[in-house]
Amino acid sequence: MKAIVTVMLKEGVLDPQGKAIGQALHGLGFPQVGEVRMGKVIELELAETDGQAAQAAAEAMAQKLLANSVIESFRVEIAG
Amino acid sequence: MKAIVTVMLKEGVLDPQGKAIGQALHGLGFPQVGEVRMGKVIELELAETDGQAAQAAAEAMAQKLLANSVIESFRVEIAG
Repeated sequence: MKAIVTVMLKEGVLDPQGKAIGQALHGLGFPQVGEVRMGKVIELELAETDGQAAQAAAEAMAQKLLANSVIESFRVEIAG
Repeated sequence: MKAIVTVMLKEGVLDPQGKAIGQALHGLGFPQVGEVRMGKVIELELAETDGQAAQAAAEAMAQKLLANSVIESFRVEIAG
Protein backbone atom coordinates (compact mmCIF):
# COMPACT_ATOMS: atom_id res chain seq x y z
CA MET A 1 0.00 0.00 0.00
CA LYS A 2 1.01 3.59 -0.44
CA ALA A 3 1.21 5.89 2.55
CA ILE A 4 1.44 9.66 2.20
CA VAL A 5 2.92 11.42 5.23
CA THR A 6 2.54 15.20 5.29
CA VAL A 7 4.73 17.06 7.77
CA MET A 8 3.99 20.70 8.58
CA LEU A 9 5.44 23.13 11.10
CA LYS A 10 3.12 23.50 14.09
CA GLU A 11 0.93 26.56 14.46
CA GLY A 12 2.96 29.31 16.04
CA VAL A 13 6.31 28.09 14.75
CA LEU A 14 7.86 30.67 12.42
CA ASP A 15 7.98 29.53 8.81
CA PRO A 16 10.51 31.68 6.94
CA GLN A 17 10.26 29.56 3.78
CA GLY A 18 6.52 30.09 3.67
CA LYS A 19 6.98 33.81 4.26
CA ALA A 20 9.51 34.06 1.42
CA ILE A 21 7.12 32.25 -0.92
CA GLY A 22 4.31 34.61 0.05
CA GLN A 23 6.45 37.67 -0.67
CA ALA A 24 7.62 36.24 -3.99
CA LEU A 25 4.01 35.55 -5.02
CA HIS A 26 3.03 39.13 -4.15
CA GLY A 27 5.90 40.35 -6.30
CA LEU A 28 4.75 38.14 -9.18
CA GLY A 29 1.29 39.70 -9.17
CA PHE A 30 -0.71 37.52 -6.80
CA PRO A 31 -1.93 40.03 -4.19
CA GLN A 32 -4.69 37.66 -3.02
CA VAL A 33 -2.20 35.44 -1.21
CA GLY A 34 -2.41 35.57 2.57
CA GLU A 35 -0.53 33.28 4.90
CA VAL A 36 1.70 30.65 3.31
CA ARG A 37 3.01 27.57 5.11
CA MET A 38 5.48 25.16 3.61
CA GLY A 39 5.91 21.53 4.57
CA LYS A 40 7.19 18.18 3.37
CA VAL A 41 5.36 15.25 1.89
CA ILE A 42 6.82 11.75 1.91
CA GLU A 43 5.27 9.01 -0.21
CA LEU A 44 6.11 5.53 1.04
CA GLU A 45 5.51 2.25 -0.76
CA LEU A 46 4.74 -0.28 1.99
CA ALA A 47 4.56 -4.08 1.89
CA GLU A 48 1.51 -4.09 4.20
CA THR A 49 -1.70 -5.23 2.53
CA ASP A 50 -3.96 -4.07 5.36
CA GLY A 51 -4.88 -0.39 5.54
CA GLN A 52 -4.84 -0.16 9.33
CA ALA A 53 -1.46 -1.88 9.60
CA ALA A 54 -0.07 0.46 6.93
CA GLN A 55 -1.45 3.47 8.80
CA ALA A 56 0.11 2.31 12.08
CA ALA A 57 3.47 1.63 10.44
CA ALA A 58 3.53 5.00 8.69
CA GLU A 59 2.67 6.77 11.96
CA ALA A 60 5.51 4.96 13.73
CA MET A 61 7.91 6.03 10.96
CA ALA A 62 6.73 9.62 11.19
CA GLN A 63 7.23 9.66 14.96
CA LYS A 64 10.66 8.05 14.79
CA LEU A 65 12.18 9.77 11.78
CA LEU A 66 10.03 11.81 9.42
CA ALA A 67 8.74 14.52 11.77
CA ASN A 68 10.40 16.44 14.58
CA SER A 69 7.60 16.41 17.13
CA VAL A 70 8.96 19.47 18.93
CA ILE A 71 8.13 21.78 16.05
CA GLU A 72 6.30 19.67 13.47
CA SER A 73 2.98 17.87 13.23
CA PHE A 74 2.12 15.18 10.69
CA ARG A 75 -0.83 13.45 9.11
CA VAL A 76 -0.92 10.10 7.35
CA GLU A 77 -3.14 9.14 4.42
CA ILE A 78 -3.31 5.63 3.02
CA ALA A 79 -3.89 5.41 -0.72
CA GLY A 80 -4.69 1.96 -2.09
CA MET B 1 -10.08 29.70 0.60
CA LYS B 2 -7.19 27.42 1.33
CA ALA B 3 -5.22 25.85 -1.51
CA ILE B 4 -2.82 22.97 -0.95
CA VAL B 5 -0.19 22.60 -3.67
CA THR B 6 1.80 19.36 -3.61
CA VAL B 7 4.99 19.33 -5.68
CA MET B 8 6.71 16.02 -6.41
CA LEU B 9 9.66 15.08 -8.59
CA LYS B 10 8.48 13.54 -11.85
CA GLU B 11 8.66 9.79 -12.38
CA GLY B 12 12.14 8.90 -13.53
CA VAL B 13 13.85 11.85 -11.85
CA LEU B 14 16.30 10.62 -9.23
CA ASP B 15 15.21 11.43 -5.68
CA PRO B 16 18.25 11.17 -3.37
CA GLN B 17 16.34 12.55 -0.37
CA GLY B 18 13.70 9.86 -0.76
CA LYS B 19 16.40 7.21 -1.11
CA ALA B 20 18.13 8.40 2.05
CA ILE B 21 14.85 8.29 3.96
CA GLY B 22 14.20 4.75 2.72
CA GLN B 23 17.63 3.58 3.87
CA ALA B 24 17.22 5.28 7.25
CA LEU B 25 13.83 3.60 7.74
CA HIS B 26 15.34 0.20 6.90
CA GLY B 27 18.03 0.87 9.49
CA LEU B 28 15.40 1.80 12.08
CA GLY B 29 13.63 -1.53 11.69
CA PHE B 30 11.07 -0.89 8.96
CA PRO B 31 11.99 -3.50 6.33
CA GLN B 32 8.55 -3.23 4.68
CA VAL B 33 9.42 0.11 3.10
CA GLY B 34 9.84 0.05 -0.66
CA GLU B 35 10.25 3.12 -2.82
CA VAL B 36 10.20 6.48 -1.05
CA ARG B 37 9.62 9.81 -2.80
CA MET B 38 9.90 13.14 -1.10
CA GLY B 39 8.17 16.33 -2.15
CA LYS B 40 7.00 19.71 -0.95
CA VAL B 41 3.60 20.88 0.15
CA ILE B 42 2.63 24.56 0.16
CA GLU B 43 -0.54 25.69 1.92
CA LEU B 44 -1.81 29.03 0.65
CA GLU B 45 -4.50 31.20 2.20
CA LEU B 46 -6.28 32.87 -0.75
CA ALA B 47 -8.72 35.79 -0.85
CA GLU B 48 -10.81 34.06 -3.55
CA THR B 49 -14.24 32.95 -2.38
CA ASP B 50 -14.93 30.79 -5.43
CA GLY B 51 -13.39 27.30 -5.58
CA GLN B 52 -12.72 27.33 -9.31
CA ALA B 53 -11.06 30.75 -9.20
CA ALA B 54 -8.91 29.61 -6.26
CA GLN B 55 -7.93 26.45 -8.17
CA ALA B 56 -6.97 28.48 -11.26
CA ALA B 57 -4.96 30.99 -9.20
CA ALA B 58 -3.10 28.24 -7.32
CA GLU B 59 -2.27 26.48 -10.58
CA ALA B 60 -0.89 29.72 -12.04
CA MET B 61 1.26 30.18 -8.91
CA ALA B 62 2.54 26.62 -9.14
CA GLN B 63 3.48 27.07 -12.79
CA LYS B 64 5.17 30.42 -12.22
CA LEU B 65 6.98 29.83 -8.96
CA LEU B 66 6.21 26.80 -6.84
CA ALA B 67 7.14 23.97 -9.21
CA ASN B 68 9.99 23.57 -11.67
CA SER B 69 8.13 22.02 -14.56
CA VAL B 70 11.29 20.50 -16.03
CA ILE B 71 11.64 18.02 -13.18
CA GLU B 72 8.58 18.47 -10.98
CA SER B 73 4.85 17.88 -11.28
CA PHE B 74 2.22 19.39 -9.02
CA ARG B 75 -1.36 18.91 -7.93
CA VAL B 76 -3.70 21.45 -6.36
CA GLU B 77 -6.43 20.74 -3.81
CA ILE B 78 -8.87 23.36 -2.60
CA ALA B 79 -9.97 23.01 1.01
CA GLY B 80 -12.89 25.17 2.10
